[in-house]
Amino acid sequence: CQLFLSVGSLDSSGPRFTPLVVVELASDTKEEAIAWILSRIRDQQQNGGAELLVEQLGPGVGAQEKENPNMFLVGATRQRLLSGAEEVGLFKECNDGSMRGFTCANKHNFKDFEGDGDSFLNMAECQYIIKHELDTLRAKDETHVPGHTQVKLYPGKSIIRRLQSKGILIQIFPLHGQEELKRLSFSWYKKVKLSFQPLDNIRHYYGEGQALYFGFLEYFTFALVPMALIGVPYYLFDWEDYDKYVIFAVFNLVWCTVILELWKRFSASLAYRWGTLSRKKAFEEPRPGFHGTLGFNPVTGRKEPLYPNAKRQLRVYLVSLPFVLLCLYLSLYIMMIYFQMEGWVLSFHDEEPTFWTGILMFIPSIIYAVVIEIMNLIYRYAAEFLTEWENHRLESSYQNHLVLKVLVFNFFNCFASLFYIAFVMQDMVLLRQSLATLLITSQILNQFMEAFLPYWLQRRRNKKMIRKVQKRRTVEEKELPLAEQVRLEADMSTYLGTFDDYLELFLLFGYVSLFSCTYPLAAVLVVLNNVTEVYSDAFKMCRVFKRPFSDPAANIGVWQLAFEAMSVIAIVTNCALIGMSPQVKAYFTESETQLILWTVAIEHMLLAFKFILTFLIPDVPKHIQIKLARLEFESLEALKKKVFLQGLSEWKNEL
Amino acid sequence: CQLFLSVGSLDSSGPRFTPLVVVELASDTKEEAIAWILSRIRDQQQNGGAELLVEQLGPGVGAQEKENPNMFLVGATRQRLLSGAEEVGLFKECNDGSMRGFTCANKHNFKDFEGDGDSFLNMAECQYIIKHELDTLRAKDETHVPGHTQVKLYPGKSIIRRLQSKGILIQIFPLHGQEELKRLSFSWYKKVKLSFQPLDNIRHYYGEGQALYFGFLEYFTFALVPMALIGVPYYLFDWEDYDKYVIFAVFNLVWCTVILELWKRFSASLAYRWGTLSRKKAFEEPRPGFHGTLGFNPVTGRKEPLYPNAKRQLRVYLVSLPFVLLCLYLSLYIMMIYFQMEGWVLSFHDEEPTFWTGILMFIPSIIYAVVIEIMNLIYRYAAEFLTEWENHRLESSYQNHLVLKVLVFNFFNCFASLFYIAFVMQDMVLLRQSLATLLITSQILNQFMEAFLPYWLQRRRNKKMIRKVQKRRTVEEKELPLAEQVRLEADMSTYLGTFDDYLELFLLFGYVSLFSCTYPLAAVLVVLNNVTEVYSDAFKMCRVFKRPFSDPAANIGVWQLAFEAMSVIAIVTNCALIGMSPQVKAYFTESETQLILWTVAIEHMLLAFKFILTFLIPDVPKHIQIKLARLEFESLEALKKKVFLQGLSEWKNEL
Repeated sequence: CQLFLSVGSLDSSGPRFTPLVVVELASDTKEEAIAWILSRIRDQQQNGGAELLVEQLGPGVGAQEKENPNMFLVGATRQRLLSGAEEVGLFKECNDGSMRGFTCANKHNFKDFEGDGDSFLNMAECQYIIKHELDTLRAKDETHVPGHTQVKLYPGKSIIRRLQSKGILIQIFPLHGQEELKRLSFSWYKKVKLSFQPLDNIRHYYGEGQALYFGFLEYFTFALVPMALIGVPYYLFDWEDYDKYVIFAVFNLVWCTVILELWKRFSASLAYRWGTLSRKKAFEEPRPGFHGTLGFNPVTGRKEPLYPNAKRQLRVYLVSLPFVLLCLYLSLYIMMIYFQMEGWVLSFHDEEPTFWTGILMFIPSIIYAVVIEIMNLIYRYAAEFLTEWENHRLESSYQNHLVLKVLVFNFFNCFASLFYIAFVMQDMVLLRQSLATLLITSQILNQFMEAFLPYWLQRRRNKKMIRKVQKRRTVEEKELPLAEQVRLEADMSTYLGTFDDYLELFLLFGYVSLFSCTYPLAAVLVVLNNVTEVYSDAFKMCRVFKRPFSDPAANIGVWQLAFEAMSVIAIVTNCALIGMSPQVKAYFTESETQLILWTVAIEHMLLAFKFILTFLIPDVPKHIQIKLARLEFESLEALKKKVFLQGLSEWKNEL
Repeated sequence: CQLFLSVGSLDSSGPRFTPLVVVELASDTKEEAIAWILSRIRDQQQNGGAELLVEQLGPGVGAQEKENPNMFLVGATRQRLLSGAEEVGLFKECNDGSMRGFTCANKHNFKDFEGDGDSFLNMAECQYIIKHELDTLRAKDETHVPGHTQVKLYPGKSIIRRLQSKGILIQIFPLHGQEELKRLSFSWYKKVKLSFQPLDNIRHYYGEGQALYFGFLEYFTFALVPMALIGVPYYLFDWEDYDKYVIFAVFNLVWCTVILELWKRFSASLAYRWGTLSRKKAFEEPRPGFHGTLGFNPVTGRKEPLYPNAKRQLRVYLVSLPFVLLCLYLSLYIMMIYFQMEGWVLSFHDEEPTFWTGILMFIPSIIYAVVIEIMNLIYRYAAEFLTEWENHRLESSYQNHLVLKVLVFNFFNCFASLFYIAFVMQDMVLLRQSLATLLITSQILNQFMEAFLPYWLQRRRNKKMIRKVQKRRTVEEKELPLAEQVRLEADMSTYLGTFDDYLELFLLFGYVSLFSCTYPLAAVLVVLNNVTEVYSDAFKMCRVFKRPFSDPAANIGVWQLAFEAMSVIAIVTNCALIGMSPQVKAYFTESETQLILWTVAIEHMLLAFKFILTFLIPDVPKHIQIKLARLEFESLEALKKKVFLQGLSEWKNEL
């Protein structure tokens, strides 16, 4: 592992190994439970242990009574980490430039393996391995956690997940690497420069899932640049007489199909380089919150809680679905109130137009934008509660249901009013104004809620801690001692994954691809937003949140689907906007029916063309396809050889 | 292997092993080439041979000079077949009811493995294994085939494919099993009864690809029964005033989406039971006809002909695509001629209506139907030629391009006139009449061309042969001696795969799903056709064609996609037909625009609903998902154990 010797090993109260992961147990955990957990973590693998190193964290400098003493630092020997890397199926670059699953037997074939392999695995990988080893620590014949008779254990099931769902394990998080973090944050957001983000370094520090998000954010921003460039002259030279937008709509159409296809290829290249493209998924364990009656899992044959699928389906279709529909109805209702307000303000302005009534004109839109944000936020909590209550067995299934719920509502909530203005009221001036207000308000709100507010809260806490430390002893180095550092990080907010970040991009993508032809500056605004977003996201990752465990993602998952669904909707919307434009209407003066039929026909052709394009453009670039094929060919050949040798020995046995 | 002792082993001229596969070399093949080929087939696997048994076929009873002497019978020892089964990755049922890849080491865990495993593999599997072993017989250091200096060889490339593309190997085919065939044909088509087809027996004899086709044919027929049942009262009680069809169209809409989703699940069940669902595909070798300049394959690293992809793309987009478009244009042109003829006949009939002019009314449709069939046939040859010329490296890529070309043209050719009548002329009476004529004519033509004509030709040949044999010696048993049997089968037509059969079903599916609301009897006609199709297809498989090698298919492949594309088109068409119906028009008397907008909106919702349904309904039934997950879990556990043991031994080594 890349050691961060600066902290810890110099400190007298620190452990005698490189601490990588922190495990915090509840302060009222019984002594015998702690002893049992530690012994299970330290025990050899033959005996069903995790064979990791673990030590209790010493008290902080400013030790207070309310400090939780049950903080443990976990690490591992180099040898253990390497065998763990093989167990989790880590892919690393070989000497011949291809990516292969790491095996201890072939370790010297890997590119960066030098000597004992001390710097072969990076810190994020080591932490991921330790997390995996802790997660797969299984109960043997214990029926309950020693000292906590109410916490039952089932043979073969993950101990850590059990402790987590019973509240004994409060949290488990990886430590920041101060040196590396400093370097990363400097190259990432601390200098203002025109360059790409250091994606490889981000991946190195935060793992593939995070890096793919930042890669997508960057890609999306660059993809918007041509649209922004076209939008500026539209704005400057006053080409906005609302019937020049046909060209822009056609451009939108092509743009949103092409960029998503290209992203798939780009993402495959990144995932190949990072070794996650062909990595096999590990068997998925039930999520911590899952509960049910005890039975035998038909797949593993182990005793574990089971929950009938029919019951879950009932909850989904009889409770969650009606709830979502109700929320959609509520959102529609609020939209209607907005339009009433809008009409009221307009009549007020028309009666006696002054400067103040001109300003008043914008008020309903701003209020509506704020209300939308608040509704999204409340709905988000409700959706999380409901999806939790649906009691999904797997984390992936939980995530899919949550994403679907949130996406549908957010889409509806943010775009319903725009659709109403565009296609029912057919008022392009109002559409333009609403789009601008929505876009700007939601951006300002987002940036504030996402980065500055948490940072400000965090900063206050930090300052308190530093002041406290400085009070007790004069610290020469500016760095905090390990115990303080760990407690500081433990107090940081937990990063809840890329969900909100992707959701924000999804909505921005919607604003741009659906209606930007009526407001060509939208793309410019989104580009500006994305640039600040890179900085604020980078900042919050480095300074505001606990370090997250790396997530070996091969693609952006369900979001690719969501963006593609949006691009289909964008084709329909843009075709309709084109059909409604005065320019096109001028061609079909005598028959409106003809106009609509042509619009629909062209729309269908475009949709068909989009699907054909999706099939024609390979998702993985040719040169990576070849490399993957070579790997598969080699494994097939190896298998054949093995079969042949086995057959031979069998044949000899039979003679 | 299930032996068929009846033939062969009793015959004095027969070989001393069970012959399974026949290899026919050109009659002018040099002696040394034959000797070399035989030695390579017989050679041990260590030396790069196939380790199979092979003997020359003795001359027939009525040996004539023009008989090809270079016919060889190939077989294998039981042990060789079992190790071959492991090499091809055959899945068999275990004692616990699950399907697992066969391995010689675990052979006694498999259900039907008794004693030495003599009856473990069925004949089709043995033949598939022998085919695979012959196909993977690779050139070593030979630079050319001995005696044929012009036939170059490349180290590591398949010898058989090389011989095939150079015309030295005329054909290679598996022998029929007379006993099993008799039993199969009796249970399949020889008794008239109401029961399902013996799919498991078909799979047993012909392999999974064939069995899936017949399974699909049966499924499709049963799926049509409800529609046929609704159609009959429509016809009998004269509900055909062309505005009652809305209900029928709505039924169509739902029907075509649901049956395809259910078929996917049914097909997955079949494929699981037959062990092809989770079987891994072997590495695909270049197809025999592929040529190019010599270079190194980037995947295998072997020397082989390479053909630049850019050149192929040029051929596809600059020659094939324009050709297809030209053919489509031609097809449109002929359609227009048909409509002129139709108009001419109609005016003739209107002038002086007699019984004969009434009959004359049907003539243009019949002629057009015949012309369509002829055009389809000619185009088929052109498409095959073009796709061959495009020089695809892999058989799968060749097939995809061929299917795409043929599908587009056939669809256009068969349905263009119906679309024209329905949506441009809006003449529902003519649509109904055209549909009926097209359907009936094409069915009669197909059945005739497909089964009766080849059978009649075959029968003449058979009779000649039998007469000849009977002339020379009095045969007590009615069965032919092996040598005659082999020569008889060698003369049979080669079955070219399920392409044409699926294409026919595809077009029938189109007729039913697109327009059957205007002619409710269509479903009845298609059901009748399918019933006779089962018999004629079964008959031609058993009596007319050479036995095909079994094809371990897990699904109906590209056809699933084709049928789904058709069902999307069906949704659009049915919505348009509903929108055009007088019933619906009556609701929107004042505004045609409103009517169209509503139709389009509902159509879009239905399309979206269809896509959501496709996502919601799992492609594989739950109980099979669990079984597959269990297999995967076990292999992951085994891997973990292996890694752990390796780590342990490594650790010991380091100590």
